[in-house]
Amino acid sequence: MTFVTDLLATVTRRSRQLIGWGPEETTRRSPADILQLADQLLSRRGEASGVALARDIISSYRALDAKGRTAVLGAVAERFAADHDKLQAAIADYQADPTAAATAQLHVAAEPRRQELVRRLNLAPGGTLSLVRLREDLLARLPDHPELKVLDSDLVHLFSSWFNRGFLVVRRIDWSTPANILEKIIRYEAVHAIRDWDDLRRRLQPEDRRCYAFFHPQLDDEPLIFVEVALTTEIPGAIGPLIAEGGMPVAADEARVAVFYSISNCQDGLAGISFGSFLIKQVVEELKRELPKLATFVTLSPVPGFARWLKQEREAEPSELAAEDREALQLLDKPDWRANTLAAEWVDRVLARAAARYFVAAKSPGGRPLDPVARFHLGNGARLERINPGADLSASGLRQSHGVMVNYLYDLPRIEENHEAYAERRAVVTSAAVKKLAASKS
Amino acid sequence: MTFVTDLLATVTRRSRQLIGWGPEETTRRSPADILQLADQLLSRRGEASGVALARDIISSYRALDAKGRTAVLGAVAERFAADHDKLQAAIADYQADPTAAATAQLHVAAEPRRQELVRRLNLAPGGTLSLVRLREDLLARLPDHPELKVLDSDLVHLFSSWFNRGFLVVRRIDWSTPANILEKIIRYEAVHAIRDWDDLRRRLQPEDRRCYAFFHPQLDDEPLIFVEVALTTEIPGAIGPLIAEGGMPVAADEARVAVFYSISNCQDGLAGISFGSFLIKQVVEELKRELPKLATFVTLSPVPGFARWLKQEREAEPSELAAEDREALQLLDKPDWRANTLAAEWVDRVLARAAARYFVAAKSPGGRPLDPVARFHLGNGARLERINPGADLSASGLRQSHGVMVNYLYDLPRIEENHEAYAERRAVVTSAAVKKLAASKS
Amino acid sequence: MTFVTDLLATVTRRSRQLIGWGPEETTRRSPADILQLADQLLSRRGEASGVALARDIISSYRALDAKGRTAVLGAVAERFAADHDKLQAAIADYQADPTAAATAQLHVAAEPRRQELVRRLNLAPGGTLSLVRLREDLLARLPDHPELKVLDSDLVHLFSSWFNRGFLVVRRIDWSTPANILEKIIRYEAVHAIRDWDDLRRRLQPEDRRCYAFFHPQLDDEPLIFVEVALTTEIPGAIGPLIAEGGMPVAADEARVAVFYSISNCQDGLAGISFGSFLIKQVVEELKRELPKLATFVTLSPVPGFARWLKQEREAEPSELAAEDREALQLLDKPDWRANTLAAEWVDRVLARAAARYFVAAKSPGGRPLDPVARFHLGNGARLERINPGADLSASGLRQSHGVMVNYLYDLPRIEENHEAYAERRAVVTSAAVKKLAASKS
Amino acid sequence: MTFVTDLLATVTRRSRQLIGWGPEETTRRSPADILQLADQLLSRRGEASGVALARDIISSYRALDAKGRTAVLGAVAERFAADHDKLQAAIADYQADPTAAATAQLHVAAEPRRQELVRRLNLAPGGTLSLVRLREDLLARLPDHPELKVLDSDLVHLFSSWFNRGFLVVRRIDWSTPANILEKIIRYEAVHAIRDWDDLRRRLQPEDRRCYAFFHPQLDDEPLIFVEVALTTEIPGAIGPLIAEGGMPVAADEARVAVFYSISNCQDGLAGISFGSFLIKQVVEELKRELPKLATFVTLSPVPGFARWLKQEREAEPSELAAEDREALQLLDKPDWRANTLAAEWVDRVLARAAARYFVAAKSPGGRPLDPVARFHLGNGARLERINPGADLSASGLRQSHGVMVNYLYDLPRIEENHEAYAERRAVVTSAAVKKLAASKS
Repeated sequence: MTFVTDLLATVTRRSRQLIGWGPEETTRRSPADILQLADQLLSRRGEASGVALARDIISSYRALDAKGRTAVLGAVAERFAADHDKLQAAIADYQADPTAAATAQLHVAAEPRRQELVRRLNLAPGGTLSLVRLREDLLARLPDHPELKVLDSDLVHLFSSWFNRGFLVVRRIDWSTPANILEKIIRYEAVHAIRDWDDLRRRLQPEDRRCYAFFHPQLDDEPLIFVEVALTTEIPGAIGPLIAEGGMPVAADEARVAVFYSISNCQDGLAGISFGSFLIKQVVEELKRELPKLATFVTLSPVPGFARWLKQEREAEPSELAAEDREALQLLDKPDWRANTLAAEWVDRVLARAAARYFVAAKSPGGRPLDPVARFHLGNGARLERINPGADLSASGLRQSHGVMVNYLYDLPRIEENHEAYAERRAVVTSAAVKKLAASKS
Repeated sequence: MTFVTDLLATVTRRSRQLIGWGPEETTRRSPADILQLADQLLSRRGEASGVALARDIISSYRALDAKGRTAVLGAVAERFAADHDKLQAAIADYQADPTAAATAQLHVAAEPRRQELVRRLNLAPGGTLSLVRLREDLLARLPDHPELKVLDSDLVHLFSSWFNRGFLVVRRIDWSTPANILEKIIRYEAVHAIRDWDDLRRRLQPEDRRCYAFFHPQLDDEPLIFVEVALTTEIPGAIGPLIAEGGMPVAADEARVAVFYSISNCQDGLAGISFGSFLIKQVVEELKRELPKLATFVTLSPVPGFARWLKQEREAEPSELAAEDREALQLLDKPDWRANTLAAEWVDRVLARAAARYFVAAKSPGGRPLDPVARFHLGNGARLERINPGADLSASGLRQSHGVMVNYLYDLPRIEENHEAYAERRAVVTSAAVKKLAASKS
Repeated sequence: MTFVTDLLATVTRRSRQLIGWGPEETTRRSPADILQLADQLLSRRGEASGVALARDIISSYRALDAKGRTAVLGAVAERFAADHDKLQAAIADYQADPTAAATAQLHVAAEPRRQELVRRLNLAPGGTLSLVRLREDLLARLPDHPELKVLDSDLVHLFSSWFNRGFLVVRRIDWSTPANILEKIIRYEAVHAIRDWDDLRRRLQPEDRRCYAFFHPQLDDEPLIFVEVALTTEIPGAIGPLIAEGGMPVAADEARVAVFYSISNCQDGLAGISFGSFLIKQVVEELKRELPKLATFVTLSPVPGFARWLKQEREAEPSELAAEDREALQLLDKPDWRANTLAAEWVDRVLARAAARYFVAAKSPGGRPLDPVARFHLGNGARLERINPGADLSASGLRQSHGVMVNYLYDLPRIEENHEAYAERRAVVTSAAVKKLAASKS
Repeated sequence: MTFVTDLLATVTRRSRQLIGWGPEETTRRSPADILQLADQLLSRRGEASGVALARDIISSYRALDAKGRTAVLGAVAERFAADHDKLQAAIADYQADPTAAATAQLHVAAEPRRQELVRRLNLAPGGTLSLVRLREDLLARLPDHPELKVLDSDLVHLFSSWFNRGFLVVRRIDWSTPANILEKIIRYEAVHAIRDWDDLRRRLQPEDRRCYAFFHPQLDDEPLIFVEVALTTEIPGAIGPLIAEGGMPVAADEARVAVFYSISNCQDGLAGISFGSFLIKQVVEELKRELPKLATFVTLSPVPGFARWLKQEREAEPSELAAEDREALQLLDKPDWRANTLAAEWVDRVLARAAARYFVAAKSPGGRPLDPVARFHLGNGARLERINPGADLSASGLRQSHGVMVNYLYDLPRIEENHEAYAERRAVVTSAAVKKLAASKS
């Protein structure tokens, strides 16, 4: 193993070199100059000069201000489309005689020249990370610049191939992980913020905690996505106790449940390139191997779209909510409604039923569940297992879902089947309990 | 570095698993069954089952006999072309309104479905190596089965992307390299055969010897290409002394010349995917760093097409050869012509001139040099430096080039320029001496 | 390299196992029981049972309370001395016939059995670290329990051999070092406290900072000693600017001076086993290799014994201080004496002269310099280069040395000579400037 | 793990530097000069110059011819004894007042100065390996130079501490092990010679073969001892089939028996420093972990002292052999006695009984078994399990034991007990079958 391990280090080492580049090494260039370099890069046949050109383009782009970057992105999207004359000719040839060769020719002619440009930029040291960062820029501009959409498609197409699963590596993150990586875990945690190094340590060091991340050889020390896990004896119904200070850890050996309580994507520039499903499945397998007594793998997940949907339904006619339930939910409009324990219990019961309806009935125009987290886990083949009202009493938890969280269950033998059901029929797979709840009346 | 190194090991480890698969784990399937699995693989959306299918297809294919493999390759080439109805529709849409979106659609529709199939097969553990081996099968059948050409194009297209230079790693091969890799060096040496482990040691261990190979993370312990280097004080004019037993090694510190005396491609299935140029350039840089006193980087290369060309020219009318030279060359027809030292010297002078003509004048129909080794080095930006008659007196050396070998010079500051000259104008860059020789009369 | 590297990992892995041992795995034993186990360990010949016994003794010892540990240490010191009867016999044999064999016999007989006991305890997994921790216990008790001195000598003797320099490895500590090691750097910093992770980052990440530590394979992730370095353009005369927040880092390439501004021993249990000298020399060599333009290697060091000595001298008769100087120094007795800039300047001049006298004249009973930091650096072959009054205005700096700090210069070509001068003649090697200062009158 | 692994590599790297030293870097020195350097090395206090001196001494010693080395060894043995005056004084002090301090003083005074010299030589890069090689020289001279015995004792004493088990690492040797290590396996195999690389591959690559070696960090790529293992379904009774070419390997999964069929010490200079016992136990544990179905761990061992003993007994009066047996054994004196199958069977039965007697009854003057291999395995806690006549029909097998080999059984739960029985009472633990055989009459 060591021979290959060792040689792999070189891949990485090379890709580091660009990362530390600073303004002093960069010639300042105008967007027009950069585009001219891109022209050269596409036309040159010498690969050695290609690497130098790619490096120059990338570092010049990074030295631009926001306006300059927008200009470059727009010009690339426009200028490097497929050559329409060549394409028309290829179509004519194909229609004259639709041979395999003519089809291949047509395929080549229809490819936007942007893709070849991006492929050549990728040869620069650190090129892949630079292109991921460039897509961050692009995505931020997309709402105001729909003309960038075509370039985004090109990037997605190429990223999907470069970040193919064969190169993703899951790594346990623990307290002996290098600090420069841990610092990114703190920064990228998107679900339950990590306050400082002590808070981080609480999530990594106790024997009932695990954290795993995906890495890619050309992205070095940059995690792509990570998941935080708590080992427990029961399926948890609230997030507070899981991330609180103090508390005795469960002995790893006595744990029966692994709870995925936070999943964070790290690279905005990789939005839409999905790794989460593989990460969860690999982590499930890794945990099973390490702790064979673990029997249940669930998430404890937020329900980000619930409060918004509920607001609509409370006013809609007809509504998914029964009249009594709507009445009960008026309590939500009072500040501090949870202060009255009895009332809170009552409302929580109604919220649970409403949430069940939300998952089962609320659909996007395309017929998929409205809730993005539900789409992610159901798409992975998980089952909606349990609805937990009063599970997240933080300000953001109350705001987005009135405190409701849910558990999705990853039952390995059923994952494939659930996934197919969702992929083929958009089926929302739920436990009997959730089904019953959705069908219940007040 | 170690964190990333370590994680990279996993990539490799996973890809090893398929390699040891044997007949007992493989269900025997007919070509028809395999194609049905391929149909499923292309239509299924669940990725997890996809990996299992890919693995099944690959191992079933390997369990087939030669005839069965031919059948599968042919059927894949034919059945998984682009869908012509969809393609016609995309053409119609594009012609109605040639938007970027319509172009993109057309690009997708023109892609042979074979490419997606190959991409999915690549997800199997060990998939990449299996596909390289599959292309070996294909190339062996190509002369008799021209219908496989389209599948070959698909493989070349994908391999070019998977084996992009960013993932190739150069590694020194020496006497502390694992034996399973060294054994492949013995097996793959294509220029000057390595007889046994002692012969191998003579090429690796002395301080005036170096060997470097390219590896790829998904191909594990399989070298892609390697180069053997001798450090000398002068540009050598003959191969014998370089690979003979005994002889005092030159102290590395006193060497001024690095001689690339053997370059071997290892993977038939990667024919046409070129790495040699990068390998040589990286090795030049590595050697310069290690031994700053090295001033000259040359090859000592065979001239495989010379004897055949010479035979033709001796009979052709008009001929590149002067009449006197043709007369002198009649000596070549006598067995043991080299036994007479004086005659051999005379013939060698004539051979040198003829060889110079061969390089300068003998062209393929496409206008490139006839000699394949010349095409390789000139294409890399090297310069034809010197012609050495009597340089390889082995049976094969006499047979293919009457003993002539040549030096190509890698002069880093000129490489790019030479390469462009060759790429753009098919210019054969030679030293003044070779130029003069080519122009000389007897 | 990788083969050996890999195998070395095993050494370490094994030694980890004991470290995580907790109370639940430990049988509680009385001191008397532990001593009985020690008896067995010394008498048994089977090594396998020896390891188990050693492990049992070590973990039982650690489970004891303070009183129990004192009892065990005392009993070990007393009970496992050399056997006096055997020793007398060996003396008799030797005196009868002083052969080499008789001498060897005498040597064996005079060895305290404690040493063999400690050697056998060291075979337990994690044994070395446990014994280092045991010596911490011992050193804390030594002032009240002089009878433990003999056991301490045994430990020092064995530690000196186990921690021989051949096994110490210097490692750069930076921001990509594992967090569990960085956390120890924070904890063990003994000179200028590191407040938190951000403060740590400021000492590791800027390009003008370096940190190096010594590690030992059997002590795992425990640094033994570390040194913090700042790269500067001039020899610094004050600590404040070096460790302040903000400030532009010096480009590594422009640095000419490397300043060792903090050296911390990490393991109390290794007190008196000296590594600092080697660490500094290795770091000097490493820095020279990395940054050949570095020309000067100095410390910026505290003067911990100065204030105490000065207090004595101000009252002594005769005194090293001139009468005027004594008068000037009365200002020191006023609170906030540094607030008056003019007065502070005057006092600083006097303090500098007094400090020069302190280094040159103040000696321990053994004739060595009174200042412990001076003993360390002069013993390493450094030269006292410059005296900087007003260099450390922190509370502790004012308390221990009225703000004076000094630079010791590590001039590699002179180190050996300086060291010998100090070792042989107790010579205090100083710069001409310090010499002049010491000889000056007010 | 990787952090520490990485740092450990440095230990090794440093120790490599001396290994490649050649004559050109070495000043030629006379034995007298070398001894003078040794004097300096002992008297100097500066450690830095110490390393240079140690390196000089070691390389000068290696440049000496055989006679020069003998002179240096002899002079070191003689000159650097303990200082008898100091020792007498220490004795006097001790006898006046036998305090712990006086004992310690005596211990120090009785230590030969050779030990300190060897400790300081060990600080040279590559020092440990050089001292191991020096002891090779010494052992070769010992028969003719008994005065070197004292120096040998010093080396053994120090080697025992340097090669303590905590630093020995077991590593599997297989076909992916670096060639420079494999080449040493070929060279050092002492029991059943490995003919060439193909023969080596047959012992490493099939799935029913294993090989493990011990390494030490300061000895780099030098194995200390290795063991070759065959996995079988039954306890084997002959060596031929185990090491023959061809033959189907047993599937690892179906193996029930692990046979240690060859154990080779690699370093003559470490004779008497025993690692074999630990190696076997660690390998047993490693195999059990990898292949839990393995139930039996045996050797197939030679009986090197049997033929010699048998020759004596056939002539001795009284004899361990019965009269009929002695008569039968006359057949041994005929050449080719095994050609007659019936006779060979008869003789083999008698040889088995005689061998059983040999193990049980033949003792060295110290009461231990005469057979050195028996001493090794019984000392490790193994049991003599079975006697196999006709097991090794090679020339050397017939010469040393008339073809008899034996199996020693490593039964982990009994090892400790067997070992103690042997260590305390010199008990030869045998199976019931061997016991019965030893007691049988013809």
